[in-house]
Amino acid sequence: MAERNIIRTMLVETPSIPGNLGRLATAIGLVGVDIGEIETVQVGPTSTMRNITIHCESEEQLEEAVQAIHDLDGGIRLHAVSDEVLKAHEGGKIQMKSRMDIRSLADLRRVYTPGVANVCKVLEEEPDKAWVYTSIGNTVAIVTDGTAILGLGDIGPIAGMPVMEGKAALFDRFVGISGVPILLDTKDPDEIVETVKHISQTFGGVLLEDIGSPHCFEVEERLKKELKIPVMHDDQHGTAVVTLAAVISACRSAGVDLKEAEVGQIGLGAAGLAICRMFKAYGVKGVYGADLSDDAKARLAEYGGTPVDSLSELMEQCDIVIATTGCPGLIKPEMVRKGQVILALSNPKPEIRPEEALKAGAAYAADGRSVNNVLGFPGIFRGVLNARAREITHPMLVAAAEAIANSTRPGDLVPHPLDPRVHEAVTQAVERVAREESV
Amino acid sequence: MAERNIIRTMLVETPSIPGNLGRLATAIGLVGVDIGEIETVQVGPTSTMRNITIHCESEEQLEEAVQAIHDLDGGIRLHAVSDEVLKAHEGGKIQMKSRMDIRSLADLRRVYTPGVANVCKVLEEEPDKAWVYTSIGNTVAIVTDGTAILGLGDIGPIAGMPVMEGKAALFDRFVGISGVPILLDTKDPDEIVETVKHISQTFGGVLLEDIGSPHCFEVEERLKKELKIPVMHDDQHGTAVVTLAAVISACRSAGVDLKEAEVGQIGLGAAGLAICRMFKAYGVKGVYGADLSDDAKARLAEYGGTPVDSLSELMEQCDIVIATTGCPGLIKPEMVRKGQVILALSNPKPEIRPEEALKAGAAYAADGRSVNNVLGFPGIFRGVLNARAREITHPMLVAAAEAIANSTRPGDLVPHPLDPRVHEAVTQAVERVAREESV
Repeated sequence: MAERNIIRTMLVETPSIPGNLGRLATAIGLVGVDIGEIETVQVGPTSTMRNITIHCESEEQLEEAVQAIHDLDGGIRLHAVSDEVLKAHEGGKIQMKSRMDIRSLADLRRVYTPGVANVCKVLEEEPDKAWVYTSIGNTVAIVTDGTAILGLGDIGPIAGMPVMEGKAALFDRFVGISGVPILLDTKDPDEIVETVKHISQTFGGVLLEDIGSPHCFEVEERLKKELKIPVMHDDQHGTAVVTLAAVISACRSAGVDLKEAEVGQIGLGAAGLAICRMFKAYGVKGVYGADLSDDAKARLAEYGGTPVDSLSELMEQCDIVIATTGCPGLIKPEMVRKGQVILALSNPKPEIRPEEALKAGAAYAADGRSVNNVLGFPGIFRGVLNARAREITHPMLVAAAEAIANSTRPGDLVPHPLDPRVHEAVTQAVERVAREESV
Repeated sequence: MAERNIIRTMLVETPSIPGNLGRLATAIGLVGVDIGEIETVQVGPTSTMRNITIHCESEEQLEEAVQAIHDLDGGIRLHAVSDEVLKAHEGGKIQMKSRMDIRSLADLRRVYTPGVANVCKVLEEEPDKAWVYTSIGNTVAIVTDGTAILGLGDIGPIAGMPVMEGKAALFDRFVGISGVPILLDTKDPDEIVETVKHISQTFGGVLLEDIGSPHCFEVEERLKKELKIPVMHDDQHGTAVVTLAAVISACRSAGVDLKEAEVGQIGLGAAGLAICRMFKAYGVKGVYGADLSDDAKARLAEYGGTPVDSLSELMEQCDIVIATTGCPGLIKPEMVRKGQVILALSNPKPEIRPEEALKAGAAYAADGRSVNNVLGFPGIFRGVLNARAREITHPMLVAAAEAIANSTRPGDLVPHPLDPRVHEAVTQAVERVAREESV
């Protein structure tokens, strides 16, 4: 997901003559830079001042855009280039807050000593009531060892902290969960499992985040077995949920019956394998997978999928193809079969551009720009916490994917991530399955 | 600190006749129950409805108070008894919040992907900048193994969670620190140290809380040595800071020169030993200590104090006596020397009641009701985080105690804990010393 991640805000003044904004936007666009928001800061008698947010692939591209504006004539002036993203991160993105005001000695005696002692005694007798009288049941640890941060790789947990804080901010924003980042100084599965176990009573759930493959499998499996609270590796199952939702929507658009289709997964990393498992759980009979690694293919077979030996074999075999390889242009137009549904999800550049795939005969094609985990994990955890489930199961994840698909407007691949209805729908779907399973 | 920790709110209706509230308050007081706030809920034409907060020592005493009100004639009626403290704890006292609003896709791209990737890259190159661009430098772990929760003992970490949440709420309220409770499922010092080490990069400091003696000494010493961030066991040093502040104030009231005095500590548990170390650090030459345990006395000698063999010997020897034994009435009036300063800090019942001590000739006497750790730890951690200190030293703690003493109004023992000036003063004092030490 290292797409266009250099975001800057340019303060530009243009003389108040129609056409100037168009010239400015064209100049920026010609060097390949995307324009985001344009905010009018000041409208003067002779000129207009605007903040223009731009998304660049590299520092070089940013410099080209700056030069392109400088080269414009007619009084267009670039006053400043600022890094609003970095500025927004100053002081961090999250903070633990008191849920109640403490204004009087009476408040203090309620929140702290001596009043709190009575609550402690209640919990000593009935530890189960901690779900009611503490924040434990509303708190999820966001745990990383920093080995697979976004598409950036093993950059370490501290460099990954902005991602963990982002997850915590989204937990708060979308479903009111208290997300607590935990940065581990070890990549050793034994030490990770021991450490998380020793602190797990503090939390109602554990979100494993950006932990590299293959040790992420062992870590997740062992923690799921040893902890009494739900554990989910978002890069596997969160991604798989949103991908399944996107495929359901794509099949609806293309008029394809997903459960009866042959589905092929190119790239059997952590996400790819989880996507295969999700298809199996959804009820797809034919799930195929291709990867260069024999280990990954063996793992796929374990999960009930069918390994195939070559990309072309998979492209020939499958009605629906999902690619998560990180290799731009891997799928050639001549490999596309007429009527295929193709989701090339690698960022920033897909395995095949949607327009190419469509031109080559695909019934539906999309890239990964909108397939964002944020549609899944908040509602999934809200649902299991509401139901007080002890684990997150595949039926819950399938229900989450269906809820996302059902919240998608016809023709779209996924819903808008800021639409509160999707998070509510995922919550309810997961909570319902969790309650059914606990009966 | 298990004093009067049963707090209830009684909804009482009294006919609007002068003297009725007095009769009601007298009836409650006669069974030994303390009255806190009285809030008028409704003033009707013939009667008044009030919420009366009461503090009881036991359930039995609460029942006696209820009976006493029922026995009143003249139309006084008790409508309800509610547990406001428990109610206030529903859902927990703290929550991790996003510090910024996420209203648009542009916000999402700043807080989360793709924008966040750029911040991650900045931190990969300069991990030190995490202090600026993440919440790490404003976050303190509040770590407990649940072995010494308040005066309640080894009731387990889950039962202790309301105390940890209380600390986090106070951190937020007084100094804007993000406090994160961490409940450990182990009491083994090796496992505690390993676990805290593995997660320590997440935090700017570690507050050890309610960890029992003697393993608290080993845990704190090892963590201080192995971590690069400040570590403090509040039950030792937080208590010692506030006690030293109280003694400084008491000596001012009594006209005693503390540094030239002989100071005696009765009870050499975790708090008692830390108090002795604090006196030594403050510059008191003669620090004596009594305890039944030879281990504790050996430890005192290590810290530079002088163990004495009997309580009466200590009482004879010392100008200033501090008691933290948990044994009510341990100090007999006949042991008190004329002109002595006596702080009998055990809760709920002191080693000698202040009025008894004064009657027996003490120049100043107080109990522990107002000696509350909340005066210390928020400003201490704010100060070291501001200075980015790597440890909390005794000179910083002494500076904190002096700041508290200097914020105390003449005649009082300590300042009001809700006075923002005391937390600001402690912060500044600690930060100043930390910056001096780092030069």
